[in-house]
Amino acid sequence: MDIKAYLKEKKELVDSFLKDYFTPDLLPKTLKDSMVYSLSAGGKRLRPILCLAAHEACDGDSEDILPFASSIELIHTYSLIHDDLPAMDNDDLRRGKPTNHKVYGEGMAILAGDGLLTEAFFMMANSLSNKNIKNTALIRAIKEMAFVAGIHGMVGGQAQDILSENTEPDSETLSFIHKHKTGALISGSLRAGAFLANCSKPELNSITRYGENIGLAFQIIDDILDIEGSTDELGKTTGSDVRKKKMTYPAIYGIESSRKKAEELVTEAIFVIKNFPDKAEPLREIARYMLARRN
Amino acid sequence: MDIKAYLKEKKELVDSFLKDYFTPDLLPKTLKDSMVYSLSAGGKRLRPILCLAAHEACDGDSEDILPFASSIELIHTYSLIHDDLPAMDNDDLRRGKPTNHKVYGEGMAILAGDGLLTEAFFMMANSLSNKNIKNTALIRAIKEMAFVAGIHGMVGGQAQDILSENTEPDSETLSFIHKHKTGALISGSLRAGAFLANCSKPELNSITRYGENIGLAFQIIDDILDIEGSTDELGKTTGSDVRKKKMTYPAIYGIESSRKKAEELVTEAIFVIKNFPDKAEPLREIARYMLARRN
Repeated sequence: MDIKAYLKEKKELVDSFLKDYFTPDLLPKTLKDSMVYSLSAGGKRLRPILCLAAHEACDGDSEDILPFASSIELIHTYSLIHDDLPAMDNDDLRRGKPTNHKVYGEGMAILAGDGLLTEAFFMMANSLSNKNIKNTALIRAIKEMAFVAGIHGMVGGQAQDILSENTEPDSETLSFIHKHKTGALISGSLRAGAFLANCSKPELNSITRYGENIGLAFQIIDDILDIEGSTDELGKTTGSDVRKKKMTYPAIYGIESSRKKAEELVTEAIFVIKNFPDKAEPLREIARYMLARRN
Repeated sequence: MDIKAYLKEKKELVDSFLKDYFTPDLLPKTLKDSMVYSLSAGGKRLRPILCLAAHEACDGDSEDILPFASSIELIHTYSLIHDDLPAMDNDDLRRGKPTNHKVYGEGMAILAGDGLLTEAFFMMANSLSNKNIKNTALIRAIKEMAFVAGIHGMVGGQAQDILSENTEPDSETLSFIHKHKTGALISGSLRAGAFLANCSKPELNSITRYGENIGLAFQIIDDILDIEGSTDELGKTTGSDVRKKKMTYPAIYGIESSRKKAEELVTEAIFVIKNFPDKAEPLREIARYMLARRN
């Protein structure tokens, strides 16, 4: 299959849903502008796409869950806005543009993040109107997203990350940060997509293990790109992890071992979903594609 | 009825649910401590109590929705933590204690707020396990809370509030801020309680109008207390609205007119729920109690 075409098609679906989501009459305008600024800053929509792909792999129709899947991009975007704040990672550049607080000020950036996060749950709950989604599955999927986005996942990981700055790297803490800060949302996006397709328990287990593997692979590649990539390609200031003495995979294991580890994780991810039908082909291709990405 | 005893009983229920909610093994510890610090700082639990009281007024059993109602206190607490941040209202004192960022730093305070907000949705969705709550009602209630807490409610109101600092007060903007920043969450707490009791449409309409009236009354009294109350009684720095040239009811209409307006709103709130049975007595008494509060 042509994975690039698949990713492009799904990205366009998500983009077109999000494009007109915030209506012109939404007030205050500055808050809306601030949210839209970051939401339309050129994200790859990876998490929504994973949600759609897992849904399809479990025999669901991705059109049914487009709003739900798109809501995950609001959660991802909120996390980037808050992470970039001066009190957190203090980044000036994101996806080649000034960060949200650089444009709208810190107060509005905090509120834009709060607004995106909360609206994501509104979008999810709003799927109640879709007759093809079972209520039980929807509530399970909402619970999953709240779990992986919050203190048991992303927020917990980010907290550990800022607590660990300027401390000596150790593998246990690094593993905690990776698993929670990035891995949880990736794995949760997949699991939510599977829930919404009323997946079986074995299917859920496989999707979960696939998610854990590609989640970690994604983060390792991210850390390598921060060292090897160029600011132009990534659209953010590279080398910032080293400057901030961030705990990263390459910092502990070196670049070569890190890349090898990422390759092993991708192989494992593809292996654990071996019993899935052809419809899981995008999941397999996304895993392979992840290794090759340059941004 | 003895409204003080009622408020005390319900507050204790919410407090005891929240007390052990964050388990000792939740990591990172600093994040947990930061959330618990603000959550246990002596809030009146007004919004959870309103949710429980509306549920009872519509013939529900408040035990069924204790976790859901308590989750609203997490949302309220998150909003206080973020509002107090230097980039927002820059307050040093809240409920007689140093504000969250004064103790844990700005980064951790932002994350504690993010964590509380997200965990609130987890707590709500976790009500799926309660056999007495219908799934449709639960999803409606979750949607309601996301609506009133986010850009269509509290976040929108707070954004307008910080955008309006140091501008000339006008009644339209003030009304927008009050309705969204405080009114929405109060009204939404009541409506969610009603949804979860499978209320009828006329019941929902009455509860909604009750909420709009007491929501505004609550905010007006709050603004008056900021001028007339003492820092000791309120546990926060008084007079801060005037210093920051915040748009408030007394600033536009004067204290006497404002108090009169609050009284009218409470009378109206009691009137719109006149057809409710005895079980709505707490709602009526809470409305009256609101006028008399000193903190």
